[in-house]
Amino acid sequence: MRPYELIKAKRDGGRLAPDDIRAFIDGFTRGSVADYQMSAMCMAVFFKGLDDVELGAWTRAMLESGEVLDLSETKGVKVDKHSTGGVGDKVSLSLAPLAAACGVPVPMISGRGLGHTGGTLDKLESIPGFRVDLSVAEYRRLVREVGACLIGQTATLAPADKKLYALRDVTATVDCIPLIASSIMSKKLAEGIDALVLDVKVGSGAFMKTQADARTLARTMIGIGREMGKKVVALLTDMDQPLGRAVGNALEVVEAVEMLRGRAPADYTEVTLALTAEMLVLGGQAKDEAAARARLAAVMKDGSAEAKLCELVKAQGGDPAAIRDLSKLPRAKQTVAVGAPRAGFVAAIDSEAVGLAAMALGAGRERSTDAIDPAVGFMIEKKVGDAVKAGEPLVTVHYNDAKRLDDVKARLLRAWRIDDKVPAKRPLVIEKLN
Amino acid sequence: MRPYELIKAKRDGGRLAPDDIRAFIDGFTRGSVADYQMSAMCMAVFFKGLDDVELGAWTRAMLESGEVLDLSETKGVKVDKHSTGGVGDKVSLSLAPLAAACGVPVPMISGRGLGHTGGTLDKLESIPGFRVDLSVAEYRRLVREVGACLIGQTATLAPADKKLYALRDVTATVDCIPLIASSIMSKKLAEGIDALVLDVKVGSGAFMKTQADARTLARTMIGIGREMGKKVVALLTDMDQPLGRAVGNALEVVEAVEMLRGRAPADYTEVTLALTAEMLVLGGQAKDEAAARARLAAVMKDGSAEAKLCELVKAQGGDPAAIRDLSKLPRAKQTVAVGAPRAGFVAAIDSEAVGLAAMALGAGRERSTDAIDPAVGFMIEKKVGDAVKAGEPLVTVHYNDAKRLDDVKARLLRAWRIDDKVPAKRPLVIEKLN
Repeated sequence: MRPYELIKAKRDGGRLAPDDIRAFIDGFTRGSVADYQMSAMCMAVFFKGLDDVELGAWTRAMLESGEVLDLSETKGVKVDKHSTGGVGDKVSLSLAPLAAACGVPVPMISGRGLGHTGGTLDKLESIPGFRVDLSVAEYRRLVREVGACLIGQTATLAPADKKLYALRDVTATVDCIPLIASSIMSKKLAEGIDALVLDVKVGSGAFMKTQADARTLARTMIGIGREMGKKVVALLTDMDQPLGRAVGNALEVVEAVEMLRGRAPADYTEVTLALTAEMLVLGGQAKDEAAARARLAAVMKDGSAEAKLCELVKAQGGDPAAIRDLSKLPRAKQTVAVGAPRAGFVAAIDSEAVGLAAMALGAGRERSTDAIDPAVGFMIEKKVGDAVKAGEPLVTVHYNDAKRLDDVKARLLRAWRIDDKVPAKRPLVIEKLN
Repeated sequence: MRPYELIKAKRDGGRLAPDDIRAFIDGFTRGSVADYQMSAMCMAVFFKGLDDVELGAWTRAMLESGEVLDLSETKGVKVDKHSTGGVGDKVSLSLAPLAAACGVPVPMISGRGLGHTGGTLDKLESIPGFRVDLSVAEYRRLVREVGACLIGQTATLAPADKKLYALRDVTATVDCIPLIASSIMSKKLAEGIDALVLDVKVGSGAFMKTQADARTLARTMIGIGREMGKKVVALLTDMDQPLGRAVGNALEVVEAVEMLRGRAPADYTEVTLALTAEMLVLGGQAKDEAAARARLAAVMKDGSAEAKLCELVKAQGGDPAAIRDLSKLPRAKQTVAVGAPRAGFVAAIDSEAVGLAAMALGAGRERSTDAIDPAVGFMIEKKVGDAVKAGEPLVTVHYNDAKRLDDVKARLLRAWRIDDKVPAKRPLVIEKLN
């Protein structure tokens, strides 16, 4: 069928044949299907969806629009983790060395921060010398030799997704579950993984605001994995407040290293351990979650997880001394506390507002071309449920430039809601799907 | 709001503010709103619609994207007719001289045939010398001096519609009632009319297949007219078989002239008179339909309608002798009859199939750049309800090139359905809306 007929068929609620989907995506990648046809198709998909078979074909076409890495030279079940993105989400930084230290190879291609969410690549680059632009050959070698490698997206992997994402971003077709799911899965499957753990964030600071939407997205990605013959497990985790205490690139690296030492905030530690435990089970390094948690506790205690992080940092051109001695990481010149306007209990922290405050401070980007300051950010002093006296610090701002400080402080103040009652406790890991 | 936000708002079922719609259409015309954003918007409109206020703003922005002709120098109420397009629809050819002969000025900008429907411009051009590419100044002068002028679309009138239509045509967003209505109305209002009669065709050969859809389209256009302060009347007319007997450019001119002489098929005559009567009432030349019909009968009888057509043909560079003596019009070299495969009654004639057969014969175009043969076409010998013996001609093919004749005959045979029973009679003018 011609592009016109395919758009019309989807618009009218029809099912598209896998070969037609393949031809449409291939045509889009090559340019014979115009951007204006693809954007009309995406809007039709927004309204009419894609069923499992269509979505499998759509994802496979995007995946196969570029190189699909073959990591079979590396022994073992290669497992990656993907997060739908949150504020203070430094899970990858500790999860990758933990899993690798337990014998699960972790091939991980990550993104940069944009808008209110930070990016793993930016966090890693706050480690002096750390390079995320390794070649595919180097990436392969490190997965094999170190057991983990964290790099940025390359032009050769899933180019259709790259082109499609840019188009969706300007045509209001980003927040469409089948398109989100196929975008994530095509990129992840191109990495050469055997299995995948998904961290689907739910809450005010997440892309998915409701548990129902998060569950649908998780199920959709699990379904794509099934179509592709890859095992996928998803955890729905809470993002109604930032994860851990640190928000900002170098500050988050510090917290991630402290997590490996058993000294990080409970929420961040628990989410990391829950996700990594799933990786160990998928990777055949533990028979169940309990066994996996025992192994993780062991590699934290005996220092081998931190040693694996140092090995990884060194292999990617970074200075492992900055991990051993965290004071060598970039540090902001000034700090200032934002005090509570009244006494009470922290009822809620608006993660998105905190993320946007971090962006305003220079820790994140508004546009993909913006520069960031690795040293600046926030340390959250009072999390949801904490009691607070009037004037007591809610959050400490680490800054280099006082220019936008008033704006940042005002944003932060608005992000905290203080109430008279202790709020109900919310579970951190809400649900597991597989 | 930015284009992205407007697309998102419409996608989510919101109402767009008139100023935002204006900025979006203006941006599209100038190129600051990308084609891929407009196609996504059109698809969102397909699903979420436009309310009266939005549609008024949308149409006005398209109308005012170019020149809006002012024909106030011509006295009287200027009235045009628009048809949504049918097969054998030569109504404009007789309606314009009839209305003009009764004192209603008719400024008419028409289109060319594409696909299964013919175009008024192509029919007119089968008259030797007839020019449809007059300048706006000549058009103005002829409306004033002759009382009618029929030309093609110009680049200066509603350029946004021209650009938008081309985009909708390749993104499966043509068959969307608000977009159809705003496209028609923006073009018609740019002509300088005071009032408009709509011929909304209903049936298998029409764009609107059901009476409900046709009624919605008619009401939508009447609503836009009201927003713009223009009186609009719509007749829903039957297009379950071709109108009249002639299909093909010169053949249709012959039939149109015969209509002015009172010798055309009853269905074509009746639809023309019903529409023209509405024009006379809107144009203040008759107090009601009965009075209008009496005037029309008079200008047919006394020859002044035919004289007006000759005057118009001459003014547009054509040879009026070809109207007085119809044998001077282009004529095909050969004719062949397609006989009935069995005896019975004609139960249905698939207009779209007849139109596509005419296109295959060379009377119409598949692509806008295709050449057409003005002489070829069909004369329908048996219409719906007619009794027919086996082998008796259903239709006569007028052709110059025998090459595609087998294909054409096969298509025609498939278009006629012959049954044992006399079919129920359908009304020709189904409904009037205003």
